Amino acid sequence: MNVTVRGQTRHHRTVTFDAARNSVLLIEQRLLPHEFKIVATQNFRETAAAIRNMIVRGAGAIGATAAYGLAQGALAFRGKDLKKFSSHIADVYQTLKAARPTAVDPVNAMNAVRREMTRGKTVEEKKLLALAAAEEFANEDVRHCEEIGKHGAKLIRNGMKILTHCNAGWLAFVDIGTATAPMYAAQTLGKKFHVYCDETRPRSQGATLTAWELAQQKISHQIIADNAAGHLMQRGEIDLVIVGSDRTLGRTGEVTNKIGTYTKAVLAARHNIPFYVAIPLSTIDWDLKSGLKIPIEERNESEVLGAWGINSRGQREFIRVANPATGARNPGFDVTPPELITGIITPTGIFKPEELWKRRHELGLAD
Amino acid sequence: MNVTVRGQTRHHRTVTFDAARNSVLLIEQRLLPHEFKIVATQNFRETAAAIRNMIVRGAGAIGATAAYGLAQGALAFRGKDLKKFSSHIADVYQTLKAARPTAVDPVNAMNAVRREMTRGKTVEEKKLLALAAAEEFANEDVRHCEEIGKHGAKLIRNGMKILTHCNAGWLAFVDIGTATAPMYAAQTLGKKFHVYCDETRPRSQGATLTAWELAQQKISHQIIADNAAGHLMQRGEIDLVIVGSDRTLGRTGEVTNKIGTYTKAVLAARHNIPFYVAIPLSTIDWDLKSGLKIPIEERNESEVLGAWGINSRGQREFIRVANPATGARNPGFDVTPPELITGIITPTGIFKPEELWKRRHELGLAD
Repeated sequence: MNVTVRGQTRHHRTVTFDAARNSVLLIEQRLLPHEFKIVATQNFRETAAAIRNMIVRGAGAIGATAAYGLAQGALAFRGKDLKKFSSHIADVYQTLKAARPTAVDPVNAMNAVRREMTRGKTVEEKKLLALAAAEEFANEDVRHCEEIGKHGAKLIRNGMKILTHCNAGWLAFVDIGTATAPMYAAQTLGKKFHVYCDETRPRSQGATLTAWELAQQKISHQIIADNAAGHLMQRGEIDLVIVGSDRTLGRTGEVTNKIGTYTKAVLAARHNIPFYVAIPLSTIDWDLKSGLKIPIEERNESEVLGAWGINSRGQREFIRVANPATGARNPGFDVTPPELITGIITPTGIFKPEELWKRRHELGLAD
Repeated sequence: MNVTVRGQTRHHRTVTFDAARNSVLLIEQRLLPHEFKIVATQNFRETAAAIRNMIVRGAGAIGATAAYGLAQGALAFRGKDLKKFSSHIADVYQTLKAARPTAVDPVNAMNAVRREMTRGKTVEEKKLLALAAAEEFANEDVRHCEEIGKHGAKLIRNGMKILTHCNAGWLAFVDIGTATAPMYAAQTLGKKFHVYCDETRPRSQGATLTAWELAQQKISHQIIADNAAGHLMQRGEIDLVIVGSDRTLGRTGEVTNKIGTYTKAVLAARHNIPFYVAIPLSTIDWDLKSGLKIPIEERNESEVLGAWGINSRGQREFIRVANPATGARNPGFDVTPPELITGIITPTGIFKPEELWKRRHELGLAD
């Protein structure tokens, strides 16, 4: 999407590849929203480190980064020995996979690249196929988000006030995003609307990343405390909720997403406000049979006990807010049941959560 | 309640009066939870400034502070001229009233003191009556909180996990508090339980004041992000919710309280978790006929856009968390309808919210 730096507006993807320098270019997301900077990794180990250190985060974005990282590793190989090349690729693959061991997107992305590489007969052919496959992975991520936008834009009418939670925007994908895709598409269609970004404590991705995205795209928006959505709904000031998902159960229609999503769904249901979840196909889990059995990651309590931001001297700093002698619980995600979800916005259309299983073949589940 | 400073445990009230020095003693609440300090105001103007600058906050606490401030002003008068004394008292009254013009508690408290003073015939008699009336106002605040605790403690069973929102603790009153009163009373009865304190963004009173109180009282507790309560309820980890109230409508049973209270009530109702509101009689509004017409104060957006805390050098500091180009909405309160409230814990007993009007005479409404 567009980013304006010192008056200059340019289109950026979250992740791109510079073939001339054999370098993966990444938006340094840890500096956002206070600084915009592109990081160029010089080799696959630096690319793995960028995933591990969360320079890049978000399902689609780390998938594409791993795909490019594998191509980058392949292109750096010197020689024509297929056996040595193959062992080198296995090393690159493991290094990138280990950078975020619980994530499924990097593995899926690299498997797609490796599948393409088998079509090559020489090292040179395999290198070119790897690069093309990585580019194709990134482009498909963008096309899927565009399709989500096309379907979702129909839900947005002029004058609407839309609530979103956390960041399922273009920074979490290669471009466009999922929860944000309908907004960007509606904007292109000339629709006027206002977005409330939940702050999304404890990590504040709504106040930082989503707000930054919407500001760059000149979409009217404001941040609200996570506590405020219920009151705004009660007073008729929210017309639509769109969020993303980290894992959606294809068998049950349950949606796992950032902590607080469930609360917003309960509130929306009480006020008869449509609640939509925008997802890429890669986040559908076709195996699990109950969302309430998903183990919820308990994250470090320091996230809840304080906050990161910019101090009065312009420096990034952590402050302790909470009582020094007190600890915290910090579940990272929650599970929203299908009866609270109006629809799932996918690249192939908008479906009731209960419909996903019936439509599993068109949604990409191979038998 | 008890406060431990450098290993020394002492009982403190939030507000007391030092008659020997004619000084109001206040816990400097702006420094909590990071520093415990008692401020002694030297005259009624300093006492008014302490209310204005929020050294002291909370309905019962500022009521008692104003009552003591009026007595302090009376005691400082030199001479025996009743007319001059009366005009001096009017000045003291106006100065203290103007310190928090929208609050009703200081006015009610000072009116009670003035009523008592009319019984005196000389300046000297009126001074002593003022002091006695201020002490009685503070003591009655404590007795009411004790009664709330006595009634509310019955709701707490061994092993319970209790959620509270914001701070309706002893720091907001002269002692004991309202939402915390059942917890302190249950502890005295030897019951074991655990409290989750909502962080309560944007001002984080749960993470700072309530957590500090519970830590001082050695009650098992943890802070959670405001986003986490829904998930914990879904997984059966919350058994009871107790909150306070800034204004409860006697005619409808609607409860106005810190932003986010309504959300917790909606979640509790969905999960059949008892939701109680603990209130002193002074916060019942017998006039208003609809809570949804209460104008909700929109506070400064900077509260949402950042946070106050202690930096790595031990200094109190504000950091900007949010995207610099983005603004915020910041409603300070919300309204919870009676159908979401299991009961209202008052000094005279626990009632259904719909019962308040029927019981208005025992709850202190004079016809």
